[in-house]
Amino acid sequence: MSSTDTKKNPKGRRHGLVIVNTGNGKGKTTAAMGTAFRALGVGFKVKMIQFIKGSWDYGELHSAEKLGFEIVPMGEGFTWETKDRERDIEVAWKTWESCREAIEKNEHDLLIFDEINNAIAYGYLDVKHVLDALRRKPEEMHIILTGRDAHPDLIELADMVTEMREIKHPFHRGIYAQRGIEY
Amino acid sequence: MSSTDTKKNPKGRRHGLVIVNTGNGKGKTTAAMGTAFRALGVGFKVKMIQFIKGSWDYGELHSAEKLGFEIVPMGEGFTWETKDRERDIEVAWKTWESCREAIEKNEHDLLIFDEINNAIAYGYLDVKHVLDALRRKPEEMHIILTGRDAHPDLIELADMVTEMREIKHPFHRGIYAQRGIEY
Repeated sequence: MSSTDTKKNPKGRRHGLVIVNTGNGKGKTTAAMGTAFRALGVGFKVKMIQFIKGSWDYGELHSAEKLGFEIVPMGEGFTWETKDRERDIEVAWKTWESCREAIEKNEHDLLIFDEINNAIAYGYLDVKHVLDALRRKPEEMHIILTGRDAHPDLIELADMVTEMREIKHPFHRGIYAQRGIEY
Repeated sequence: MSSTDTKKNPKGRRHGLVIVNTGNGKGKTTAAMGTAFRALGVGFKVKMIQFIKGSWDYGELHSAEKLGFEIVPMGEGFTWETKDRERDIEVAWKTWESCREAIEKNEHDLLIFDEINNAIAYGYLDVKHVLDALRRKPEEMHIILTGRDAHPDLIELADMVTEMREIKHPFHRGIYAQRGIEY
């Protein structure tokens, strides 16, 4: 039960967490969105930078807008399916630059780097740059990194790591992805 | 990557999914809240009925309100820590009655029965009632059931099951739960 998993410490010092949501199952980005929802509710400033275009789009952005949640989508037209490795690397790097700047500017309580783990796993982005920026983040800032195949060094550095493991998926039963739930 | 995990089928028939988020890690309820966020964005009517008081509270409810998300909290004062098994069973049963009614009334596109798996695992609620109601749900209705130790029969019936597995938790490093992120 969430309420008894950890001790609350309302008067304690705020400790910005590095959170990793990884694994092959659903819910990595979705849980990050749920955390954003909670954080916005307590007045946090929240920003998500997406490494994959379209993993969350229309519907989510519409809700997000109402709550003042900033979402920075991937570079125009980028889908990770270009088969043009040099361009992929360039776009991943530019996206990372936005992440690094957001950390340095320190204007948000929670940053979400959506699907960044994939960019690292594909070799588009060197994990060393990410580790370096995370080590120098403002103490109170929370950062969530999502995506499959989280790098071991990132898992080592993180405060909280959850693996979302697929036990069963409707596609295996021939059911197509459902609008409003899966996309 | 979420966008390529499953095939989209915008013109396809809507198929209401039974989704189970289980496991010992964070993100079961949080991912359900993220899904609610997405569903509200596409205009779905969403309701969450909580089997555990306070697993999501102030902040979340404040965001929820702005988006028209209905949240039905547990019976007053109920925390699963009463050590009064008869009362626990009574409250679990009343909460289940609200769930069953919500299914039958068919006024929502997405229902979330938060931490219901725990109530079943503790023996407060017979899984047979839940299975029976799920089998008779309106075809287009999506239902998410969260909580540890999901019953095997529920996993069998579900369309999508994800296990959230704890790899690392900040409490083990002596860091208290962080407001706005964990509660």
